[in-house]
Amino acid sequence: MFRPEIKVVDCTVRDGGLMNKWQFEDGFVRKVYEANNAAGVDYMEIGYLSSESAFSREQYGPWRFCAEADIERVIGGVEKKVKLSVMADIGRIDFDDIPLRSDSSIDMVRVACYVHQVDSAIALAHHCLDKGFEVTINLMAVSTVGLRDLNEALEDLAKCRVDIIYLVDSFGAFYSEDIDLLTAKYMERMPGKTIGIHTHNNQQLAFANTIAGIIRGINYLDGSLYGIGRGAGNCPLELLISFLKNPKFNVRPLIEVIEQEIFPWRDKIDWGYFIPYMVTGVLNQHPRTAMAHMDSENQDDVVAYYDKMTNLPENA
Amino acid sequence: MFRPEIKVVDCTVRDGGLMNKWQFEDGFVRKVYEANNAAGVDYMEIGYLSSESAFSREQYGPWRFCAEADIERVIGGVEKKVKLSVMADIGRIDFDDIPLRSDSSIDMVRVACYVHQVDSAIALAHHCLDKGFEVTINLMAVSTVGLRDLNEALEDLAKCRVDIIYLVDSFGAFYSEDIDLLTAKYMERMPGKTIGIHTHNNQQLAFANTIAGIIRGINYLDGSLYGIGRGAGNCPLELLISFLKNPKFNVRPLIEVIEQEIFPWRDKIDWGYFIPYMVTGVLNQHPRTAMAHMDSENQDDVVAYYDKMTNLPENA
Repeated sequence: MFRPEIKVVDCTVRDGGLMNKWQFEDGFVRKVYEANNAAGVDYMEIGYLSSESAFSREQYGPWRFCAEADIERVIGGVEKKVKLSVMADIGRIDFDDIPLRSDSSIDMVRVACYVHQVDSAIALAHHCLDKGFEVTINLMAVSTVGLRDLNEALEDLAKCRVDIIYLVDSFGAFYSEDIDLLTAKYMERMPGKTIGIHTHNNQQLAFANTIAGIIRGINYLDGSLYGIGRGAGNCPLELLISFLKNPKFNVRPLIEVIEQEIFPWRDKIDWGYFIPYMVTGVLNQHPRTAMAHMDSENQDDVVAYYDKMTNLPENA
Repeated sequence: MFRPEIKVVDCTVRDGGLMNKWQFEDGFVRKVYEANNAAGVDYMEIGYLSSESAFSREQYGPWRFCAEADIERVIGGVEKKVKLSVMADIGRIDFDDIPLRSDSSIDMVRVACYVHQVDSAIALAHHCLDKGFEVTINLMAVSTVGLRDLNEALEDLAKCRVDIIYLVDSFGAFYSEDIDLLTAKYMERMPGKTIGIHTHNNQQLAFANTIAGIIRGINYLDGSLYGIGRGAGNCPLELLISFLKNPKFNVRPLIEVIEQEIFPWRDKIDWGYFIPYMVTGVLNQHPRTAMAHMDSENQDDVVAYYDKMTNLPENA
């Protein structure tokens, strides 16, 4: 039996773009969109909503900005079944640059914030609500937040007008027991809110932790095709769709677009399970040093990386 | 806090050998042995115990047989901390070819069987007990066993003299809820037995399902370096050791041997998460057709494989 409240969000372009500065060709984004449409996925997160003043178009591809013209160019002419989502970072989007939903192809804005930015996130989120969008707040890096700060943040979020709050394992540090504990806390501190989950795969637990969340009542589930995403990547969408029982889901279009569009990226960017990402996951740290190591010529010198991260002398 | 009853079994050579007919050089096996020693791993499964008449030495490497001379050659001169384990398949080892433990470097024999072979497995296991070995029985492919057959098998196993019985997810088909349910059943039907778990990573759940087993009271845990093993491979040993809290464990020697000895194998054999293995996991099938597909020139034609396995016309 399936839970009709469950919604699946594909983050392929948005989170995958963190690995290539959103330099995806239009054909790629269109194919992912068509596949999500055909697979019954509920939302496709097509990128970040950023002001043009925040980033350079010379360095970043269109999905760092998600201008309406770019969106229309890639989804035009395709019957729209999957809703479109964008992520917004605090300080990188001016309120005035956010369109009205009625003028936009975007359906949902997800506001990402760290714990010290919760008040700013609520302000931005309310602004997006007032412009007509569905809105979530995604509280990142919870694995590093102290208990009092977390309780306070959840109490603030409980009082805001945003209905959907995400539990985010930014560093891939959580075990299922952490998901159990935090989901219970989120529900207790924010009665009536819908909870979402976004996981990273540093310890090969992204899918498992998403299932743990489902069992505990989480209803918004993030995934990406073949797990593509920052560092170790995300919960593989094809696994999630195969697990969920709602007959509206169909995994075949996802396998098709993985074969056609995702496989070629395996040779260009290194997402997935690699020892440096495992090390930052185990140590509950941001993957930036692991990503730098993976980009270096010494990618396979994983002992040296482990020693640096744990401050062991090299011949310990 | 850690549970002192927990024992970790490294299956790198035994399960990894299923991918290369155990054609590991002596240096490889020795390095894995030294790493397990240094990491505090409890058992290293060095291969299968087979009669020389069952397989050809021309086709298969030494760890298909685990003759004492081969073992002595690779572990000789190294202080032995990790115990040695071998797996025995029904019908591939004559009782007379099993040495006395007192004449052998082997400490533990694990008897692998399908449900219809439980009586034969008990006979072989009792023989090994009588020769002085620690013994487990590993009931394979439980995900395909009907309820009545399973209950009967567990009742037979409950009555035998073997203390350790393994829950084996041969096809990588189980979710954590299956592990929860089956662990409870194993404990209820076989009171007093120690339960072990051996998982496969077809759905990226090998490590997560091992944790689920730990939470439910399973104490014998299988893993392999970087997950090397048949098809999608096993629970990565480096993740398991990083998770377990017993201070005797040290992950660094494992990372070192992964860098030195496992990485070179990535270019030669394809274990890990691949769509064909995911498909057999989701469909609860033996990975042999997926392995054949991965060995073919059309490895990346995953839609064709999916269609064949699900009997869809190619342009459905």
